[in-house]
Amino acid sequence: MKLEVMPKQRILEAEQREDAMEMPSLELWKLEKLPKICPMPLPMPPAACDDEGTLVPPLNFAMVDDGIFRSGFPEATNFQFLKSLNLRSIVYLCPEPYPETNTEFLDKNGIKLYQFGIEGRKEPFVNIPDEKIREALKVVLDPKNQPLLIHCKRGKHRTGCLVGCLRKLQKWCLSSVFDEYHRFAAAKARITDLRFMELFDVSSLKHLMPSHC
Amino acid sequence: MKLEVMPKQRILEAEQREDAMEMPSLELWKLEKLPKICPMPLPMPPAACDDEGTLVPPLNFAMVDDGIFRSGFPEATNFQFLKSLNLRSIVYLCPEPYPETNTEFLDKNGIKLYQFGIEGRKEPFVNIPDEKIREALKVVLDPKNQPLLIHCKRGKHRTGCLVGCLRKLQKWCLSSVFDEYHRFAAAKARITDLRFMELFDVSSLKHLMPSHC
Repeated sequence: MKLEVMPKQRILEAEQREDAMEMPSLELWKLEKLPKICPMPLPMPPAACDDEGTLVPPLNFAMVDDGIFRSGFPEATNFQFLKSLNLRSIVYLCPEPYPETNTEFLDKNGIKLYQFGIEGRKEPFVNIPDEKIREALKVVLDPKNQPLLIHCKRGKHRTGCLVGCLRKLQKWCLSSVFDEYHRFAAAKARITDLRFMELFDVSSLKHLMPSHC
Repeated sequence: MKLEVMPKQRILEAEQREDAMEMPSLELWKLEKLPKICPMPLPMPPAACDDEGTLVPPLNFAMVDDGIFRSGFPEATNFQFLKSLNLRSIVYLCPEPYPETNTEFLDKNGIKLYQFGIEGRKEPFVNIPDEKIREALKVVLDPKNQPLLIHCKRGKHRTGCLVGCLRKLQKWCLSSVFDEYHRFAAAKARITDLRFMELFDVSSLKHLMPSHC
């Protein structure tokens, strides 16, 4: 009997098919063979983004409301984009000192930094500190500080909780608050964050909201 | 030999374990057993959202830019929330006629409807029509129509493509355009949509942008 040896290429293709079977549907597009005209969507090297004056928003950037933005940690490559927002303040939710490059950018552009050091640990049962979120919300809701950018490291958990509490103040129903949180946290969503947002009592902050909300 | 009959509860548990094995990591939290204090995050019956004057944003609602919002199809339960946005127009991207309940809401609140019928078919190689997106963008960028809401059915594909083209006009780099698209489309992302956004030529629309963009 003759043993059929599988050529290397066919082994590779078979492995790729197996990978595809195991991957959640979310990931399948990454394996698709694209025509040459279309590069793989992500990741793209930062250099490719700076061509022809294109702007590079920070990771997980989005507009929350008039004069309120959210994102992950801004890097030097995002500064040109941040300039276009005419920010007055940044609400920074990590305990680590702000990097020198970022502080320089803030100084040059007259942007005030408000830091609320919230630990970003991954263990369960590490609660988001209620009082820090409360103080941060007061800064966020003060029109004198807007336009402002809320950010932590990835723009998922700490930023997600702060924005979630803001939504509760805006009377959003809990399912929509959670839906927005999940849109940014995706697979990294934490039940402790959801619990924090659900239990957060907005009654003492209602006077900070403009009458139209 | 005695046949061991599996009690109903054990069968259910086994099925749930199997489901969990098959689900992508993104979905696993849905199966977690939560303490009584915290209801399952999603879905939540609409009735629970209407308590105490809470507002119910439409599916996939988000702010795109000053005076520009995006979402899935608004239902009657979302009308109170939509009122709070003081909309002047709705840009509707499906070919189906607008439901009577929604038309009534628009009439009552002086909101103008702009319809651009783009088919929502799931088959590959069904291209987004370039000309319709171009015409819709002109409506979106006209300050006389703002504040406005862009919506299709789910707020993922047609709305995602229109917003993606708007971001290109705002000079966002392609990786950030795609990142935002993925945030809403998630597991339903379509390579044809990404290709459409990449190839969309914004040069003839640049005059519509305010000078600060």
